Order: sequence, then C-alpha cells, then structure tokens
Amino acid sequence: MGEKIEMNLAIVDDLIKERKEQYLQQLFSLLKQESISTTNVGVRECALLLKEMMQASGIQSRLIETEGHPVVYGEWLQAENPFTVLIYGHYDVQPPEPLEEWQSPPFEPTIRDGRIYCRGVGDNKGQLMAQVLAIKTYLDSFGELPVNVKLVFEGEEENGSPHLASFVERHKELLACDLVYTSDGPMHVSGIPSVELGVRGILGVELVAHGAKWDHHSGNLGNIAPNPAWMLIDLLKTMRDDQGRVLIEGFYENIRQPTTYELDLFRKLPFDRKELIEQIGYADIEEDAETFYRLLSLEPTFNICGFHSGYGGDGSKTIIPAKASVKMDIRLVTDQDPDDIYQKLCTHVKKHAPAVEVLHQGDMRPSRTSAELEIVKVVVEAVRNAYSMDPLLVPGVGGSLPDYVWTQILGVPSVMVPYANADEANHAPNENMTVELFYKGISCTCHVLHRLGEFSR
Amino acid sequence: MGEKIEMNLAIVDDLIKERKEQYLQQLFSLLKQESISTTNVGVRECALLLKEMMQASGIQSRLIETEGHPVVYGEWLQAENPFTVLIYGHYDVQPPEPLEEWQSPPFEPTIRDGRIYCRGVGDNKGQLMAQVLAIKTYLDSFGELPVNVKLVFEGEEENGSPHLASFVERHKELLACDLVYTSDGPMHVSGIPSVELGVRGILGVELVAHGAKWDHHSGNLGNIAPNPAWMLIDLLKTMRDDQGRVLIEGFYENIRQPTTYELDLFRKLPFDRKELIEQIGYADIEEDAETFYRLLSLEPTFNICGFHSGYGGDGSKTIIPAKASVKMDIRLVTDQDPDDIYQKLCTHVKKHAPAVEVLHQGDMRPSRTSAELEIVKVVVEAVRNAYSMDPLLVPGVGGSLPDYVWTQILGVPSVMVPYANADEANHAPNENMTVELFYKGISCTCHVLHRLGEFSR
Repeated sequence: MGEKIEMNLAIVDDLIKERKEQYLQQLFSLLKQESISTTNVGVRECALLLKEMMQASGIQSRLIETEGHPVVYGEWLQAENPFTVLIYGHYDVQPPEPLEEWQSPPFEPTIRDGRIYCRGVGDNKGQLMAQVLAIKTYLDSFGELPVNVKLVFEGEEENGSPHLASFVERHKELLACDLVYTSDGPMHVSGIPSVELGVRGILGVELVAHGAKWDHHSGNLGNIAPNPAWMLIDLLKTMRDDQGRVLIEGFYENIRQPTTYELDLFRKLPFDRKELIEQIGYADIEEDAETFYRLLSLEPTFNICGFHSGYGGDGSKTIIPAKASVKMDIRLVTDQDPDDIYQKLCTHVKKHAPAVEVLHQGDMRPSRTSAELEIVKVVVEAVRNAYSMDPLLVPGVGGSLPDYVWTQILGVPSVMVPYANADEANHAPNENMTVELFYKGISCTCHVLHRLGEFSR
Repeated sequence: MGEKIEMNLAIVDDLIKERKEQYLQQLFSLLKQESISTTNVGVRECALLLKEMMQASGIQSRLIETEGHPVVYGEWLQAENPFTVLIYGHYDVQPPEPLEEWQSPPFEPTIRDGRIYCRGVGDNKGQLMAQVLAIKTYLDSFGELPVNVKLVFEGEEENGSPHLASFVERHKELLACDLVYTSDGPMHVSGIPSVELGVRGILGVELVAHGAKWDHHSGNLGNIAPNPAWMLIDLLKTMRDDQGRVLIEGFYENIRQPTTYELDLFRKLPFDRKELIEQIGYADIEEDAETFYRLLSLEPTFNICGFHSGYGGDGSKTIIPAKASVKMDIRLVTDQDPDDIYQKLCTHVKKHAPAVEVLHQGDMRPSRTSAELEIVKVVVEAVRNAYSMDPLLVPGVGGSLPDYVWTQILGVPSVMVPYANADEANHAPNENMTVELFYKGISCTCHVLHRLGEFSR
C-alpha cells in the first residue's frame, strides 16, 4: 500500500512540475488583487476572483455573506469515503505600510533570489492557493478526491475574524466535518515542516487619552494644559512592571498548565539562537530553548503595537497634543478568556485613569487540540511523506488564528501545517514566500488528502 | 508736548484708516507665501517677498545669509536723534498639520467674524507687517522717523532660531542699538495690552529606542522580540513622577528666584479661570492666579510634543514595532542652562536605558530684562497711549523667543509687546488674528517710535 501512495503521488508531483509556470501565474493574479480588510480595500473583488479560480479548479464555490466581508466557500463532496476534511484559510491581507521600506511595490508580485515578494504572499494567499491548486492537481490526476473536502476562506482574519464564529455557529451543518486543516503562518525557523495543534488567543484594545480640545503651544500653556501622552504613560506603568509582568489584577488566572506529553514535545523542538537572532534582527536574545517556547506559546503578551500622540514629522513642533492613543494586542493562552481579561483591564483603567477611553478592537479565544489523537499522527505521516523528513509536532504556537471556532464550536480536532518560510516577513514590509515552498505546499496538501483517504477507508 | 503727540498721531491713525484695505492686502500677500522652516517650504521665496515689501515701505532692505535660512535685514538711519531701536520678528511659520482640522485652507487668508484665519497670521506675519507698515505710515505722515530703526526678521524661529545667536555675534556692529523691540506671541487673555520682559528658554530632544531591525508579527515573536515603545515608557517613567516632577538629577538647580518687585507685578496680573478654561478647551483647571503665573513663567516644563511608534491608522495591525520615538520640548527658566540640562538628561538616559539614542533638537536660553529700567517705563507709556488703557507689565512669559541674543550677546534691554489676540491659536489649526488688532499693532508701533524719539531727545 505504501508503494501505491508513492506511485500515485509521483503522478501528482509530475503534474505540479509540468504546470509550474501556470500555477505561479494563478497565484500572481490573486496577489495583484489587493484585499486589505482593515481599510476595506479590494476585499470583495478579491473574494470574487478567488471564487472564480476555485470554480475553475473543480471546486463548487460561492460567496457566503457575513456581517462583514464575505466568506468564499467551496466544496467537493463526491468521495465514496464519508470522511470530510475542512480546509480553512483567509484571502485578506495586512496593510502594506510603511510603504517606503518595500524594495518592490507591495502589490506587484516580484521574484528575487527564488522568493516571491508581495503583500499577502505568505499570509495567506500563497498557502491558500497551494491548497486550491492541490485539489485541481489531484482531480486532474485521478478524476476524484480520496475524501470529501470543504473549503472556508474568510476575508477578515487580519481584522481579528470578528464574524467567523457567528458564521460557523450559523452554518454548523454545512460545515460538518471530521478534521479541520489550516495552512497559515511561517514554518519553523529550522526549515523543518511542522504540525501545530494550538494557538494563542488575542485581545485588541485601544486606550485613548484626551487633554485640551485642541493642540496648544507648549510655551504659552506649558504646565497648565494637560498632556495626554503623559496620562497614557502614567497609566501604562500601572499596568506592567519593568520586567514585563502584567499588573492587572487576575490577569494570570485560568492559565492551563501543559501536559507532560506536551512539555516533552516542546523540549524536542530545535532551537538555534544564532539563527533566531538573525531572523529577528536583534542581537540581545538570551533565552534557551525551553524558555523560548514557553514564552512564545504558554505565556500571554502585553504588546504595544502602536502609540501615537502629537507631532511625528521631521524637525520639531512645540505643542501640547490634544490626544494620545495606544493600540495594544494582548496574546492569551488556554484557558484565558478574552471577555474576562477585557473586563479586568477596564476595571484597572477605571481605577487608575478614569478619563481614559478603552476601545475594544476584537478578540479571539486560544485553542488547543490534543497531541495524542490518532488523526494527528496520520497528518504527521502525510507531511513526512511530502517533505521527506520528520515534521515537528508542536503543541502550541505564538500567533493567533480563530482555531477555537473549529475545536470549540464545531467540536472537531484541528491541525495546522504552515507552508511559508520562517522569514516570510508576514505583517512587515517585503513579505515573501519562496517559490519552492509554494510548490511544496501544493504537493503536501495532495499527500494529506491521500493519506486521510487511506486512514478513513 | 503731550498734546503735540496726540495731534501728530491723529494724522497717523487717519492714514492707517484710509489705507485699511491696502494694508490688509499687503498682509494677505505675505500670508499666501508659505514659509515653513521646519520642512523648508517656501522660506527663501518669502524672504525675498518680504524684502521687496520693506523696500517699498521706505526701509533699505537686504537678505543676509546665515548657515540656515536668510535674515531679512532693514534699516532707516537718517534720524537726527542718535537713539536706535532694533525691531525683531520672524517670517517663518509652523507646519499646518493636522490639515483636516482647518476650516479654511491654511495658506489662503480668510476673514470670518472679524478674524483673519491663516497659518502664520498671528505668529508672526501679522505682527511683523504691523511694524513694517507703521514705518511706512510714519514716513508718509512726517517724511522721517523720530529715531533710527533697524529691523531683523529671521526665518528659523519656529525651528528654534539655531543660527540667530551666531548671526548676532557676527554682526554686532551692524546691529548696535539701544533697545530691542519685539512683537510676537499672544496678548494677555484679558485683552489688555502688555509689555513683557522675559521668556522661558527651551531644550528640544528626541529619544529614539530601537528594537529588532524591522517590525515583527506580534504573535509569532511576542515575548521574544523587544518592544521599543515599552523601552521608552520605562525610561520616561524614571524621568518624571506622576505628579509631573522631573526626576533627572540636578534638573532644578540654578533656578533664579524672582525679585519682590517682579512678584508684585505677577500678583497684579488679571486672572479669570472661566475664560482660561474656555481658551484651553479643558474644564479641569484648578490653579489660582498666583499658581498659574508661577507655573507658566517661573517653572520649567517637561513636555512630550510627539510620541510615535508602530501602527497608527484605522483598525489594528498586530506588530511589534521596530522603533519608537518621543519628541520633547523642555522649557527652562532663568538661570537654567540648556547645555547643562542636556548633559544631565544624557547622563540619566545612559544610566537607565543606555541603548536609547538622544538627539539634540535645538535649544534657547531663557532671558529677563529688569522691570525697573527707565526705558521700560517709556514703552509702557507709549503702549498706554496707543490702546488708551494701562498695559500689564509682565516680568516673564511661558513661551520661548531668542531674547537672550539681545540681552546677553548685544547686552541691551529687550521689551516684547504682543499684538495678536490671546486666542490666536498659534502652532495649532485655525490660527487667526483679529483685523482690528492688526491695525492696532500698526498704530502701537507708531506710538512707540514717537515716544522713544521724545524720550531720547
């Protein structure tokens, strides 16, 4: 039987090879179509384009409206085998700013040194197209798929997936499946493929302090008109000590300790500090392997993603700003609850700086799938076959995906197999994905479908 | 003799009345010419235009180059009387941002409800043109001036006058005079004219914290990549307590206590909290008169005029910023020395956050002229004649002007008589000056020249 897989998938890999240029052009078409969910630029146009491309790949596809941007839904349900895998991804991208730091325009896919540079190529269009083109390749090779496949590509992931949960809640029957499979985020920095079983949650907030009704001359009213930047700084310092520990009461309650098996898996993960330092672009990284994975996967963050007040141009402008705003994204770990943390944060602000406004900017629960499930092992095998090496099995990663909608709302296991290179620079200028890993992603999806077919037969 | 003045200056006031429209149009021409020194937009064009206007007003004028923007220098030296007054002002303006808050375009002078709205109208073009047009009016009325007049209009005041001191140092003979007369800044909030004798100094710094070499995804590297916004916040909190007291060692050394006479003058100044609250646009002003003037004139500030890091647009962008920067302007009082304070600040940063860069953004010494000089009383009289009310005599104001170049480099007394309304909104959107006060400024300059002539004869 092992031989049969090999033989079958050799056909698939040959076809991918034959269509290299064609598949690359399809990806480029999708990349050129902007789809910035946070500023609503080109999102629907991109959804329509993606639907057409899926349809042309043999997937019955349509847009399903949500309260926000539409979901592109596709399905192929003609398998003899009742097993159904649901593939999740997102077609929206981050804003491209700061523009001046891009070496080529952010929405013109450009190949340099074997990498495709374009906003959204790694996060998530390259990975999503690998999945779509895998189905096309498999269908063209064998005339059918080994399992039923449903695809859910949302348009609001970069905005915190505010409507995915209600979408899943509303379409539970349509989305019924046995496993959810996601390719998003970067591969491990070692270049070894991985199967990931959990994510951190997130809570986004903005704190806004108001001073006078308009900016004032800092000489004519200095020491008299209040300074909202200082108000925020005074508040922020009550929320976190200078070791980084969060001082909001009850913030660390409800954090689930990992199982022995999970800790074992963490310890087995490779760690190369030198490589990490290069990847981050910061020399002062002190952590050892265990501390690194613990901080990244098992501990919450209290990150400032933006702080803005007053004049920011060249030279100086001597004003007392009328307003100051800090945007924060707080990553949460199982079983912290974003609603609970938000309430605690509001209580803290009310106590220390009642005049400061707190704006809720979306949230997402953390999620974890047991590493000991049989189906997890099957996926691990398929990935091993695709990349010809042992994948890493990772109990949790640092980023946030709306994985809880599958594990908690649909109640099924969920695995994530990232296809993009570790240095994809997602969310940053010069986002990229290597051409090679794009093709590998197509191949890997074929392997996973194939192995799931064998497993469930 | 008092009668003669009255009569003479009735002629002057009649001429101003006759030329109302013509003088307004001359001001508008100057206002339309942008001259943003901080971004170098239109500055030289404005200098050339101003020179032509001065020449046309009977003042022999030329540009004198500096290491930065040129000085427009003018003189009329044909008085029989050897007394010379030097008039100082500046033709550069603040940047107009935030543009969206202007009710009419910032460089299109527009009259609404008796006010001229335009960037630079109060600070300082309206006041400067009042002086130029006063000389024209006086010359056209009497064929000569009662004293010699020199005019120095610089183009870098909004940038901290970085080259004025070296300019004065280099041209001591050319600039030799008996008194320096400046009209800048807003009048007292009560609407009563004032004669001001001192300014706060200023030290501008920018603190820059660097994290990783580029922005990172806050999930994929949260808790690992350093956050420069938090670095700055941690540093800033070591520099100032939450009562606003500066914690830099030695910051409060060298502050000269006011004389009894100066304190008396402060106590005589009017104070209307309700009006102040309206002017500032902030309800929570607690100070009484004494505290207010003390905080504003006798105490240094530690102001944040800009704090910028990471994403500031709509929605959210979950990054760990690569960089954070805070711009500060620190107002100093006699005899704090900007060089000394800068060294103390650098020492503090080196101790608490050695990785943070400190950029020097210009400075200016504080200045004070004795309130007990005879010449001060003469100016007070002239202003009383011009406005038909007792002016306030103010030992010091909150803003900064390069007044020390006159009192310390030229070694002469210096008086400031602001012509713009208290709510001129200098440095802010919708900067304005009332049409009435523009004409009053022309008249007041005539009165001052006239009275100085009588005094020195």
